[in-house]
Amino acid sequence: MRINTLCRRLLPAAIACAVGTSGAVLAADPEEIIEYRQGAMQVTKYHFSTIADMLKGKIEYDQAAVEKHADVVQMMSTLVKDEFPEGTDALAGETGALIDIWDKPDEFADKVAEFEKTASELEDVAESGDRERLAKAVKDVGSSCKACHDDFRQDE
Amino acid sequence: MRINTLCRRLLPAAIACAVGTSGAVLAADPEEIIEYRQGAMQVTKYHFSTIADMLKGKIEYDQAAVEKHADVVQMMSTLVKDEFPEGTDALAGETGALIDIWDKPDEFADKVAEFEKTASELEDVAESGDRERLAKAVKDVGSSCKACHDDFRQDE
Repeated sequence: MRINTLCRRLLPAAIACAVGTSGAVLAADPEEIIEYRQGAMQVTKYHFSTIADMLKGKIEYDQAAVEKHADVVQMMSTLVKDEFPEGTDALAGETGALIDIWDKPDEFADKVAEFEKTASELEDVAESGDRERLAKAVKDVGSSCKACHDDFRQDE
Repeated sequence: MRINTLCRRLLPAAIACAVGTSGAVLAADPEEIIEYRQGAMQVTKYHFSTIADMLKGKIEYDQAAVEKHADVVQMMSTLVKDEFPEGTDALAGETGALIDIWDKPDEFADKVAEFEKTASELEDVAESGDRERLAKAVKDVGSSCKACHDDFRQDE
């Protein structure tokens, strides 16, 4: 274990409180933040996969619903950068979050920014009702999810 | 157990697929919907309680963060009406959701509408930066959460 990793793990979890880049101040309890973060991932996955399922014909296509789901995915994408504050790194390994999130913050931030960008495009395209462009936008969001999970999430 | 409750519980969970009042078409697997729903509650709780913690002085007040948290609470409030589709009632009792949600749909809808209303007010007030009004808005949201949980959620 590297020294900086060790030091971080020795930091009392209770002092964890970070100001994210969006200005969202996070609550202090790492367990609560992790529970929230995992919930946020579920919410994102659900709304995103519902759009994908509509495009695949698994469930009926519904334009108003697609727009709503895309709005939620976009909103959720803006929260990710604040979901991994210092303090929650002490629990890396116990959750799917790899310590690389905190060891390579710039690379992680790039992946998160890519998710925000693709989710914002998804929201824009969803309003157009153009299913071909929507399929492309869904694919791009999916790729940004995968790119981040490949590097920063434990294999399931 | 009443006959209609019994019948609902005998319905194969796999056929569950409902169109919610907002037009959001829900995916078919009740377990996935429940996982999503519980995640959504975590997300709502986290962002709402972070505002409350700022007002209590537990964490530093941050105007931009308050606005963002309130935006999330408002968005999450609009999703609740679609989080309890037919089919997920078969699992009432195994989760915190009471069967009354499906047995008294109008009363449940009223409680959810009240949450949407108070969350929308919270979003508006958050932008003003008026902490006195914000405290009132937070209290109103909290009351709407409690009113619904009292009637439709199992005691913890």
